[in-house]
Amino acid sequence: MITTRTINLKSRPKGKPELADFDFSTSEITELQEGEVLLSSKYVSVDPYLRGRMSDTPSYIPPFELGKPLVSGVIAEVLETKAKNFNKGDFVSGMLQWKEKQVAKADGLVKVDPAAAPLSAYLGVLGMTGLTAYMGLMEIGKPKAGETLVVSGAAGAVGSIAGQIGKILGLRVVGIAGTDEKVEMLKSEFGFDEGINYKTTKNMTEALAKACPNGIDVYFDNVGGEISEAVLFNINKFSRTINCGSISIYNNTELPKSISVQPFLVRKSASMQGFIVFDYADKHPEGIKQLAAWLQQGKLHNTETIKEGFDAIPQAFLDLFEGKNTGKMVVKV
Amino acid sequence: MITTRTINLKSRPKGKPELADFDFSTSEITELQEGEVLLSSKYVSVDPYLRGRMSDTPSYIPPFELGKPLVSGVIAEVLETKAKNFNKGDFVSGMLQWKEKQVAKADGLVKVDPAAAPLSAYLGVLGMTGLTAYMGLMEIGKPKAGETLVVSGAAGAVGSIAGQIGKILGLRVVGIAGTDEKVEMLKSEFGFDEGINYKTTKNMTEALAKACPNGIDVYFDNVGGEISEAVLFNINKFSRTINCGSISIYNNTELPKSISVQPFLVRKSASMQGFIVFDYADKHPEGIKQLAAWLQQGKLHNTETIKEGFDAIPQAFLDLFEGKNTGKMVVKV
Repeated sequence: MITTRTINLKSRPKGKPELADFDFSTSEITELQEGEVLLSSKYVSVDPYLRGRMSDTPSYIPPFELGKPLVSGVIAEVLETKAKNFNKGDFVSGMLQWKEKQVAKADGLVKVDPAAAPLSAYLGVLGMTGLTAYMGLMEIGKPKAGETLVVSGAAGAVGSIAGQIGKILGLRVVGIAGTDEKVEMLKSEFGFDEGINYKTTKNMTEALAKACPNGIDVYFDNVGGEISEAVLFNINKFSRTINCGSISIYNNTELPKSISVQPFLVRKSASMQGFIVFDYADKHPEGIKQLAAWLQQGKLHNTETIKEGFDAIPQAFLDLFEGKNTGKMVVKV
Repeated sequence: MITTRTINLKSRPKGKPELADFDFSTSEITELQEGEVLLSSKYVSVDPYLRGRMSDTPSYIPPFELGKPLVSGVIAEVLETKAKNFNKGDFVSGMLQWKEKQVAKADGLVKVDPAAAPLSAYLGVLGMTGLTAYMGLMEIGKPKAGETLVVSGAAGAVGSIAGQIGKILGLRVVGIAGTDEKVEMLKSEFGFDEGINYKTTKNMTEALAKACPNGIDVYFDNVGGEISEAVLFNINKFSRTINCGSISIYNNTELPKSISVQPFLVRKSASMQGFIVFDYADKHPEGIKQLAAWLQQGKLHNTETIKEGFDAIPQAFLDLFEGKNTGKMVVKV
């Protein structure tokens, strides 16, 4: 009899999530059916968007159910198999439950090659994270060499990749992050032209004007809120804003208010466009191919913050909202 | 010696413009030079966007100068000519000063045919107004038959045309306006499916949900502010908002705040795009051709509010912000 530990949603957070919103349970593993595999979790992805699924507001994916396991991107090893094409010892990537072990349908799992890249990279630059940065920047940002790209949440998982792609494509790239260490890393490790620490900068509008002497053409927005207000004052005619996330206001309990964007958009013939990575599913293979090539050529760095142990998953998730990660936050089970 | 009266910008409005922000002067007409024509104004267009040019905030067109004439779309008759291709008695359309008579360069003037349509229509459905509705809806809204279009400022110059085009293209069209008479006219004259009087409706979010049972796919936004907030709660996945203007907040003296749009855009993979009609200048001939065809076929109605007399121009402009116009507001000089 195989048992597993599971992390469940105990309560819907009011405002900022807490450890008490999660609980752990132990249960038996059900027997393998045809087309299923038994998996052992190796790396679990924690992502800001999961906050949305913890509330019961309708969104692009249904909310998590109370008392049921949370789900995110997971890299796992196949322990047993009753599915064609999957062998014991294979590594797979999929949207899986927060469990040490689990039985899953083989459909929807993708094999990953531990020889081609570190396993955790398949949650980062070679996974949804990398694709989110790539699809948002390419499909909505439509970047042109010589333009100026601003990235908020720039030291985070998606932001650090979006900014690096901007550099590869020949843009001036300015990143916004929340510590001096992160700002330094943006420049030294990711090749950004400039970085701004929003926590120590009094006037973000002026700081952006200084860092972007030719104005802002493309804004990769991971945060929303006040930082995005300051960007508005610096956008160029025909600027494109990629609305990837709004981490700064995910935990608000009231609807947040901001300076009205409409007059800025009209004055500058500017656009804002939200998206999720699945909107461009038909282009994912092309995206992964390009990201893997850049990774192999050393043009793209996969930076991670790795926490250790299954029990660390909830805290790792909470840490996202404190900006404690640099690059992709994953938990090694 | 020919003299003319002129309307000048006396002071930059603080908040809502007043008659005292304008003054009248009388001056001599300068002598015609080669390539110039002497014009007599027949119809003067007053438009909400002129409010922006009365402030000295940088925008897509430079601000009006203090003590200098205001400028807008004008239909005029050629009284004298030293320009090839322009004859005495021709009617022209151009961006001209608020003067009874004026000398103007012939470049930039377009001849209009009083036999093909009433002269004032060249400021309305066959002018910048019609083109603004057409370009915004077609290029940004990308409407598809069966979708739902919501138009704010629906009884106004641009809104009434945008909504009618929506009906021609087979969309469900819901208009928002500020009196019961306007709402009635949206349905009876312009063929809208539903109309909402925002001044007498307590809960706009619910009213929109009721009027748009399949959600909102395209939003032609002329007003910004609270009405546009209510729209956000009803947008569909992949909805497109056309940011044409923000008349509800043009007169604000402080930067207006609204519910943050970012989370809505992310959740719905939705877009907002500002524009001005000149962004699509290469497509204007095609647009005018289509608008003229619809007008001729009786599919499109050119509705106007016409004020009489040169002296009435400033008050006609102020009336725009009270919603006193239905359709295009013009002054017959």
